[in-house]
Amino acid sequence: MEKRSCDFIIFGIMGDLAQRKLLPSLYQLEKAGMLNYDTRIIGVARHDLDQEAFQAEMRKKLEKFVEEPLDREAEAQLLARMHYVLINLDRPEQYNRLCQVTNQQCRVMVNYFSVAPSLFGDICTGLDHSGLITPETRVVLEKPIGRNLITSRQINDLVAKFFHENQVYRIDHYLGKETVMNLLALRFANSIFTTNWDHNTIDHVQITVAEQVGIEGRWGYFDKSGQLRDMVQNHLMQILTLVAMEPPVNLHDDSLRGEKLKVLKALRPITTKNIERRVVRGQYRSGFIRGKPVPGYLEEAGGNPISSTETFVAIRLDIDNWRWAGVPFYLRTGKAMATKRSEVVINYKQLPHNIFTDSYRCLPANKLVIRLQPDEGVEIEMLNKVPGIGDGIHLQRTMLDLSFSEAFKKERVAGAYERLILDVMQGSQALFIHRDEIEHSWTWIDSIQEAWEKSSEPPKQYPAGTWGPVASVALLARDGREWEE
Amino acid sequence: MEKRSCDFIIFGIMGDLAQRKLLPSLYQLEKAGMLNYDTRIIGVARHDLDQEAFQAEMRKKLEKFVEEPLDREAEAQLLARMHYVLINLDRPEQYNRLCQVTNQQCRVMVNYFSVAPSLFGDICTGLDHSGLITPETRVVLEKPIGRNLITSRQINDLVAKFFHENQVYRIDHYLGKETVMNLLALRFANSIFTTNWDHNTIDHVQITVAEQVGIEGRWGYFDKSGQLRDMVQNHLMQILTLVAMEPPVNLHDDSLRGEKLKVLKALRPITTKNIERRVVRGQYRSGFIRGKPVPGYLEEAGGNPISSTETFVAIRLDIDNWRWAGVPFYLRTGKAMATKRSEVVINYKQLPHNIFTDSYRCLPANKLVIRLQPDEGVEIEMLNKVPGIGDGIHLQRTMLDLSFSEAFKKERVAGAYERLILDVMQGSQALFIHRDEIEHSWTWIDSIQEAWEKSSEPPKQYPAGTWGPVASVALLARDGREWEE
Repeated sequence: MEKRSCDFIIFGIMGDLAQRKLLPSLYQLEKAGMLNYDTRIIGVARHDLDQEAFQAEMRKKLEKFVEEPLDREAEAQLLARMHYVLINLDRPEQYNRLCQVTNQQCRVMVNYFSVAPSLFGDICTGLDHSGLITPETRVVLEKPIGRNLITSRQINDLVAKFFHENQVYRIDHYLGKETVMNLLALRFANSIFTTNWDHNTIDHVQITVAEQVGIEGRWGYFDKSGQLRDMVQNHLMQILTLVAMEPPVNLHDDSLRGEKLKVLKALRPITTKNIERRVVRGQYRSGFIRGKPVPGYLEEAGGNPISSTETFVAIRLDIDNWRWAGVPFYLRTGKAMATKRSEVVINYKQLPHNIFTDSYRCLPANKLVIRLQPDEGVEIEMLNKVPGIGDGIHLQRTMLDLSFSEAFKKERVAGAYERLILDVMQGSQALFIHRDEIEHSWTWIDSIQEAWEKSSEPPKQYPAGTWGPVASVALLARDGREWEE
Repeated sequence: MEKRSCDFIIFGIMGDLAQRKLLPSLYQLEKAGMLNYDTRIIGVARHDLDQEAFQAEMRKKLEKFVEEPLDREAEAQLLARMHYVLINLDRPEQYNRLCQVTNQQCRVMVNYFSVAPSLFGDICTGLDHSGLITPETRVVLEKPIGRNLITSRQINDLVAKFFHENQVYRIDHYLGKETVMNLLALRFANSIFTTNWDHNTIDHVQITVAEQVGIEGRWGYFDKSGQLRDMVQNHLMQILTLVAMEPPVNLHDDSLRGEKLKVLKALRPITTKNIERRVVRGQYRSGFIRGKPVPGYLEEAGGNPISSTETFVAIRLDIDNWRWAGVPFYLRTGKAMATKRSEVVINYKQLPHNIFTDSYRCLPANKLVIRLQPDEGVEIEMLNKVPGIGDGIHLQRTMLDLSFSEAFKKERVAGAYERLILDVMQGSQALFIHRDEIEHSWTWIDSIQEAWEKSSEPPKQYPAGTWGPVASVALLARDGREWEE
């Protein structure tokens, strides 16, 4: 790999995301020798700090957020390339200060907007004012890109005034996860799955992203957003597109994102007309997680006990194209669930005829389980003969199993941000979200959100520490199906 | 399971097979409580023994051949139901002695012919002479049933004079093996394989039955037979039919055996015209097995150094039906091979298009490996992403693995003979070979044997402890393929 040198500017270096995710990821890249010797990292904030105090602060955060004993050499190298620049983001003239620490000779400059979207415009204006925008300038936008189609368009329009789409890197860190990437390998490098990946053999697909934690102090932010906007619109939609897309002709930015977009365009809209049978909205009340009592969502609020914001969503989704006609996708995601688990389950069709009636009146269908976290791996649930003699052939469900941590023992699994930061530096957009994806995704989500707003029905309650409201079970039961437990 | 009571008569109780296989299997069935309390086991031979001496002899053989410490209670129970009858098989009047120890009132009588086929006629005549043949009488015939179509017909015709086909149980102990049975479960209870099991997705199939031992004192017998007759005609053909057959409508005797027969009928003949490109005949010379020098086949012979009998065969076989058009089956079996291994490898087709050219210019195809012995199990060789970041997506071959011994830890795996003996007692013919199967199998084998006899080319030599002659590698290489190593 050619390590490109660049100026990597983090706007909002004192923020939570920057310190919790970006800094430790840069450290790991440094330690792995993946940064060009000439790459500079520039932190921007409005704190009054000299270079020494800044480095001391960064050292403190590394100690805190890198989840392993620090390699002192890597730490020193990293800190040596870090510079601090004080900018009040709404003061365009202050952006000139960046010119002193960046190299403006045909050099890549990455601007990581680790700040609230309301500040994106100020930063773009400032960069422009100081002449820092060239074809080699890139911007990284953190989600959320808006809270609906209109606001996401506003943000995208604003950024588009200064940057071409091929300079804009919208991050969804799920796309940087090792196992999400492995979905591509699984689907497109293995004929045993590729030839089976459609309505002829697949009955339905389940995508689960369950969090065990509740809101944890983010109540004010979360209550304005909710699980649909916070998790479905980005993470679940991204997993969905990777599972459902047509085989791309190659892995280049355009091919991959073009195929993902086609899935989003083919989503059957959910509106007031069908929402009742397609979506379950839930909110947790108090309950027990691992035997420990936890408060309900409204109790966590403190002063504001009335809210119909959902902490759980289950959706039956249809993709109206040739491949997936008649194959529902069931999505569910929630907070304060029984366990932390992200997985995709491909449920194959039942066999048309059963010759093992001694064992099963109705043969269970095969399943392909792709575990995204916590224990990443792939397993096939299949039927085998139980060893033994006597009457007939008896079958039992068994697992063909591949655990990534076992199969690839020696390798440290890189964090999602490490991969994505490296990709920005290298100029690969394949794992970043195209504007069209964001906007089609919001279009589909907005329709659900609107239908909710028109309805006066409150979210269904579920006890913390469970798999959501019973209505979620009923959603599948109506179709004669069950969630993977 | 209803345990039927029967009289189980072993002709040739003093023979090697009876003592090495039948006796220990009956012991295991006894220990597992699978024999009806009223079942009698009657040993027939021409030795002059009283009941006491017989039981002492049987006890000695149990000690010797049961591969675990004997359960004294089970041993005592088994010996208590064993009786000895002296019969010179060519003396019909002596068969009356059986009437004294058997129950002729509507009771099943199993006659296990554990003797040379040349004696089958004498036994049938004797049983008939004593009026012991009723519709409830069964005969079990051990392989070999003849050494070609003509002689196998003679044996079958002879037995058919006395018994209907539904009374005749022809044993191939491979059909009693746990993993061979599991082929049925694998193929017909799992849609992920069932929907993929044909020329659309499978490139070719390999069946290997490799023995590490040489001839071991059976030279005289083996040299008249050879590996083709001794292993291919029965064991490999049986595995082949189970792998290749159409889904049977149920597991009853007729359905299963009917489908197996159809495969044998569809085998493309190998004759003098095509044998050169379809069959490799080998004979081992001296070599090393596990570092120990071993003599060659001809050196094992002692006095007779000229023989063109094959100890190794590799065959490219075609099945001319809808399912397998264009899908070759490669069979190989040999003695004095590098290791002991029996397995079926389903090689899937390569994907038509490769988007992972960074990793593989040519993507390796998926494989399904069904290990029959020694370590029984199923594995899928697939491609997964190697964890890591940097250039592109790198793939690596990994295994989805199911080891039977691990998956079904608690169960002792029953021996092949135990299952088959029980099936005879219960009257299930599904795992026994129909006359038509034997005869179609011989027809196909005879054609190869004739072509060899017409040729003056000697077998290709291979060093003991290897995977056979290089011509075996070339057989697949001509088709652009490789044996599983």
